[in-house]
Amino acid sequence: MEQRFVDWLRRHVPPVPPPAIGIGDDAAVLPWRAGGDIVLTTDTITDKVDFVLAETEPRLIGHKALGVNLSDLAAMAATPVAALASVVLPRAVSGGGDPCALAMEIYSGMLALAEQFQVALVGGDTNSWEGSLVISVTAIGRVTSRGPLTRSGALPGDRVLVTGRLGGSLLGRHLAVEPRVREAVLLAERYELHAGLDISDGLALDASRLAGASGCGIALELAAIPISAAAEQLARQTGKSPLEHALGDGEDFELLFTAPPDAAEQIVRDQPLSISVTDVGQCIGTPGLWQVGDSGALNPLAPTGYQH
Amino acid sequence: MEQRFVDWLRRHVPPVPPPAIGIGDDAAVLPWRAGGDIVLTTDTITDKVDFVLAETEPRLIGHKALGVNLSDLAAMAATPVAALASVVLPRAVSGGGDPCALAMEIYSGMLALAEQFQVALVGGDTNSWEGSLVISVTAIGRVTSRGPLTRSGALPGDRVLVTGRLGGSLLGRHLAVEPRVREAVLLAERYELHAGLDISDGLALDASRLAGASGCGIALELAAIPISAAAEQLARQTGKSPLEHALGDGEDFELLFTAPPDAAEQIVRDQPLSISVTDVGQCIGTPGLWQVGDSGALNPLAPTGYQH
Repeated sequence: MEQRFVDWLRRHVPPVPPPAIGIGDDAAVLPWRAGGDIVLTTDTITDKVDFVLAETEPRLIGHKALGVNLSDLAAMAATPVAALASVVLPRAVSGGGDPCALAMEIYSGMLALAEQFQVALVGGDTNSWEGSLVISVTAIGRVTSRGPLTRSGALPGDRVLVTGRLGGSLLGRHLAVEPRVREAVLLAERYELHAGLDISDGLALDASRLAGASGCGIALELAAIPISAAAEQLARQTGKSPLEHALGDGEDFELLFTAPPDAAEQIVRDQPLSISVTDVGQCIGTPGLWQVGDSGALNPLAPTGYQH
Repeated sequence: MEQRFVDWLRRHVPPVPPPAIGIGDDAAVLPWRAGGDIVLTTDTITDKVDFVLAETEPRLIGHKALGVNLSDLAAMAATPVAALASVVLPRAVSGGGDPCALAMEIYSGMLALAEQFQVALVGGDTNSWEGSLVISVTAIGRVTSRGPLTRSGALPGDRVLVTGRLGGSLLGRHLAVEPRVREAVLLAERYELHAGLDISDGLALDASRLAGASGCGIALELAAIPISAAAEQLARQTGKSPLEHALGDGEDFELLFTAPPDAAEQIVRDQPLSISVTDVGQCIGTPGLWQVGDSGALNPLAPTGYQH
């Protein structure tokens, strides 16, 4: 359904005049006269899809609701400024809880993260209904003087890099989102980057999306992919390999970006972040997602990941 | 629950430095350097609370989802610029429908209204789940050179005015929202207004909220309240009076605003809109909501309306 609907949207939503950016990237960009670009993103999380209320500390759910939106701003190399939250509470909280107490715990989680990133919570809407918990957050940010980092700027020859280590987010990371806001801004200000996004649906799927948006292909060097300890741990339970988890798990909320070879080499040498930056492959002229074999030959790689 | 939670939010959400406006008005206001103020609002509508999917044309639901947000911008006398929509679709559409077709119809309704008000749909997030339909929209606007029209600027002596006719929205108006965007901007640009909001929860309740935010009281002249044909019609079914419907029904999405007596008189004389503007009472120094009796004496008036 998703792709059919996305295609329909492309045909029916009037395009915005450049330099504005509409639907299709991690966030929208609106020029605001002499004030500079506004970056806007919205993301909704729902019970039993993005979290399980009955098994989760509500503060963590609030943290995730804001965190995934800050991660979308990071994907554009934007600094968060403000956020608005809509919370739809279940009237009957399982275990006989009080919807009002639940709302306060959710907001506590959001507010703690907001404080950490100096985001002002400026608006909201709180309602209750017979259904399950839904939290929708909109976040607003500013780009660096380099402008927004889009999905569509990658060029054949670019190196492909990722922050941190990937896979196994189900063991906790998917809730305890660490949006790479400071990391993205630092990289975008200090180095020449061409394209970027946050890995929300899996390295393989998101890499194929970035390649598609840029009109190129991406060849990943599988042996170079940084695998998280959680991916190793999860692999012992699932029978999948740690690499499969790193490629397809999603909700890593790490950055995937491309840079020309010189800049990429510099970044890897400098290691300017408190987390690792790893070169995992190259943009190529042939569309699609590929893996680089031992001999250097390219073989197709499945864009595994979370399909909404 | 609502008031307890609102009080909690007031204590826990850090206030934004003026001239920014945070939680508590119809929309938030963020100064954006030399670009001028950004006005931001978010509102979520849910199945069986704000509409009944099984009985409603999905286009109308999309229309309402965007319309209530544009009405919140109108309440601040802001011109809409852009919007983002998050739609959470039921996996099983009643009657065996297709979630993707449902999404397209909802968006068709939003896009038609967006075109009418020259709002760019710049972002979104569409997901499905086991629950019922939820649509969350965030709208972004610009204020006039007069600045935002807040709830808190009313002064004792101001006249209280409303646009259009009130009550009976349940008969259709609550879905076919007509956001008073052009009306609000015209009034704010041409006349001195002190405070305003959109009537979403009922004239009486919203008037008492405006009074509370402004630290004054409001005395309504009940005989002056413009009653809609729908309120008359609904009253024949409910046993309530048309006036009770006009006071307490909510979802009129008309404007309630205050102006100093000279400006108010001018507006009523000019009738500058394609809909009526009616003087319905006065701001007074004594807090609370009042009705003006035949002899001019004030009696308390219940703030009837929709409590979330």
